[in-house]
Amino acid sequence: MGGDHAPANAVAGALRAEAAGVRVTLVGDEALLRRHLRGAGDGVEVEVVHAPQVVGMGEDPAIALRSKRAASIRVAAALVAEGRAGALVSAGSTGATLAASLLEIGRLPGVRRPAVGALLPTPLRREGQPGGTVLVDAGASPDAQPDALVAYAAMGAAYAAVRGVASPRVGLLNVGAEPGKGSAFAKEAFAALGALPEFAGNVEPAGVLAGEVDVVVTDGFTGNVLLKTVEALLQVPDGARGPGAAMLLGCAQPVLVAHGDADPEELAAALETAAQVAAAGVIAELGRRLAPPARAGAPDQEVVGG
Amino acid sequence: MGGDHAPANAVAGALRAEAAGVRVTLVGDEALLRRHLRGAGDGVEVEVVHAPQVVGMGEDPAIALRSKRAASIRVAAALVAEGRAGALVSAGSTGATLAASLLEIGRLPGVRRPAVGALLPTPLRREGQPGGTVLVDAGASPDAQPDALVAYAAMGAAYAAVRGVASPRVGLLNVGAEPGKGSAFAKEAFAALGALPEFAGNVEPAGVLAGEVDVVVTDGFTGNVLLKTVEALLQVPDGARGPGAAMLLGCAQPVLVAHGDADPEELAAALETAAQVAAAGVIAELGRRLAPPARAGAPDQEVVGG
Repeated sequence: MGGDHAPANAVAGALRAEAAGVRVTLVGDEALLRRHLRGAGDGVEVEVVHAPQVVGMGEDPAIALRSKRAASIRVAAALVAEGRAGALVSAGSTGATLAASLLEIGRLPGVRRPAVGALLPTPLRREGQPGGTVLVDAGASPDAQPDALVAYAAMGAAYAAVRGVASPRVGLLNVGAEPGKGSAFAKEAFAALGALPEFAGNVEPAGVLAGEVDVVVTDGFTGNVLLKTVEALLQVPDGARGPGAAMLLGCAQPVLVAHGDADPEELAAALETAAQVAAAGVIAELGRRLAPPARAGAPDQEVVGG
Repeated sequence: MGGDHAPANAVAGALRAEAAGVRVTLVGDEALLRRHLRGAGDGVEVEVVHAPQVVGMGEDPAIALRSKRAASIRVAAALVAEGRAGALVSAGSTGATLAASLLEIGRLPGVRRPAVGALLPTPLRREGQPGGTVLVDAGASPDAQPDALVAYAAMGAAYAAVRGVASPRVGLLNVGAEPGKGSAFAKEAFAALGALPEFAGNVEPAGVLAGEVDVVVTDGFTGNVLLKTVEALLQVPDGARGPGAAMLLGCAQPVLVAHGDADPEELAAALETAAQVAAAGVIAELGRRLAPPARAGAPDQEVVGG
């Protein structure tokens, strides 16, 4: 029920994904969804789970979802938490998706707050270099504290490693490459990141787009501006915009956020990506890479909740 | 003496600008500059003013310039303040150019702190719409307070008006178009801007690049990231990057900042733009538009220092 063209685009995207072999469960107003499914009328069967409530545009999602147990995003997250679905995809607000995921799915051990990990295109890279830089946070927390970027670096590096990068280099998005550049936030983040072996220093937008680092970390406001600027400028005439969705890194199950104005093709791509992430065990691998190494001989209970 | 390829590119850019009819004064180490001029050897005479000091990369420019009266950027600013030059162009750090301008040239009445006004390309605009959005602040103050954006809006609107826009619309750069979106900074800035008649609300990067507003305001960190991202992605193979320089809005004389890695062609373009700004009386017009209207019948002394 989330997104600018709900539920029409979600239904059309689900039908495309089903045709590509992805089993989709649509969550929302059942009568409305069935009407849209009949209208599309391919005879394809798509599972529907009824959820009568929605989070309104003017509502604070974290507050609204605490009482709205039947909100579509919360019911969808609960399906994933219960193992009845392998991944959650939403074109609704990132804030609502994050809030529902925190309530129902929870976080990986050691994660304080999930962040959006987006695959940023790297059109300025040299020939032969692998494409794509993992951008964290691409929009979950517009008001992050500088030391939160240490966790973003760890999550981003884990995600890059899952993508096949052997020793991910992490850069801090900044307005200059030299140490000491930027806002007070950037300077504090630089100091906090300094202890990480994978930290490669400041990186300017041109460096990010050239693939100088495998992961770039920043606050969710700047990251979202960067992502949306790149997407707007790389938008090709047919509307294709890459993988179609970004991942909420740090959630205990796969959660993907699509663009609010995603078209059926993008939503189908997001559903296919979600299915791949679930099948490949990406979250379990992320959890292994994020978890602090268990100390030899330490009793189990010391690790629990770590 | 500022910029990544100083003074070679500055000398070559000055020679190009002279050939285009701009009278240039080079400020820096005279022996070094004359050697470069001889090496270029066109027989073109370029005025040189000796300035033996420079601001080091590791120095705080505001502090360093207070004692370094013979720093090239400060001597150049003094030439403009004394009327011996009509505009200042620098490829050195924006911070040093701003500090030297504040010390020597001063601000227009009513301006607390100048901001960088850059002409952002609008490649996504509809056919027939005029190109270019004025971005303020493109990098002078990475740690602006939200209410500083009210002054940025006024300066940006005045600059757009000088460019010929009849009733400039001012947007706040944000991660969503609806009110209430974004960081705490963005929400406070939205509230502060709300009283301005020219305020058109939040604008996302795609809207900025589509020319939905004539002016977009944001803090100097986010603005610099936006500008550098757009410039990096629009960089055409021959290296041309638009007008070559941005303007320090709010200074009492024309001050333009070029890219640190500007090539001779870009520096020549910056010098030509500076000459046009000076000849067209842009600063005087900005001052008229920024000054609070004098109240009828109020004695003069009440307006002084306003």
